[in-house]
Amino acid sequence: MKQIHLFQANDFSEKGMKRFLVHDSPYFKILNFNFLPGQSLPLHAHDVEGQVSLLILEGEGEYLAGEEQTIPVAPGDIVICDIAEPHGLRARSSMRVLVTIAPPI
Amino acid sequence: MKQIHLFQANDFSEKGMKRFLVHDSPYFKILNFNFLPGQSLPLHAHDVEGQVSLLILEGEGEYLAGEEQTIPVAPGDIVICDIAEPHGLRARSSMRVLVTIAPPI
Repeated sequence: MKQIHLFQANDFSEKGMKRFLVHDSPYFKILNFNFLPGQSLPLHAHDVEGQVSLLILEGEGEYLAGEEQTIPVAPGDIVICDIAEPHGLRARSSMRVLVTIAPPI
Repeated sequence: MKQIHLFQANDFSEKGMKRFLVHDSPYFKILNFNFLPGQSLPLHAHDVEGQVSLLILEGEGEYLAGEEQTIPVAPGDIVICDIAEPHGLRARSSMRVLVTIAPPI
């Protein structure tokens, strides 16, 4: 069993999205991505089986589902997609996101 | 791709912990458990392989790790354990928790 205080474990960077590895096991990989306003995880996809969940912990932004397809996200929103589907995020305010990938890649 | 607004999708119940199935797939099962003060998910374990993550979205309480072993939890805290390890939760204030189980059971 392990406990992590996400708000203490990771901060923000002017250089770009700040990535923190929360957990990696044969079952899932858990990451915390922190964004300053305007920072993004560009639209991308991986040609592997599995799914990813993106949970907004703090802040507001947009989920990127395609080149011209954006969906507003706010705290308490969760988005789930196949890893092979295009996905990304862009922050409007300082935004903290929990990312869970299963199986881990 | 699907999006769920957790704070709108699930509420609280005087009868006990309010459970909401967010997602179920071959890769992971995602649930939202809401507790009123004093409500709990009793200490339990499942004799299967895999891990569970418990993320506190709102409220405060205690993670139950054993009969006499409790750990305070607050928003932004994540606890990860084997499904076979004893685990549980008890709420001190109204508490919302996201639970991810991989592989799904």
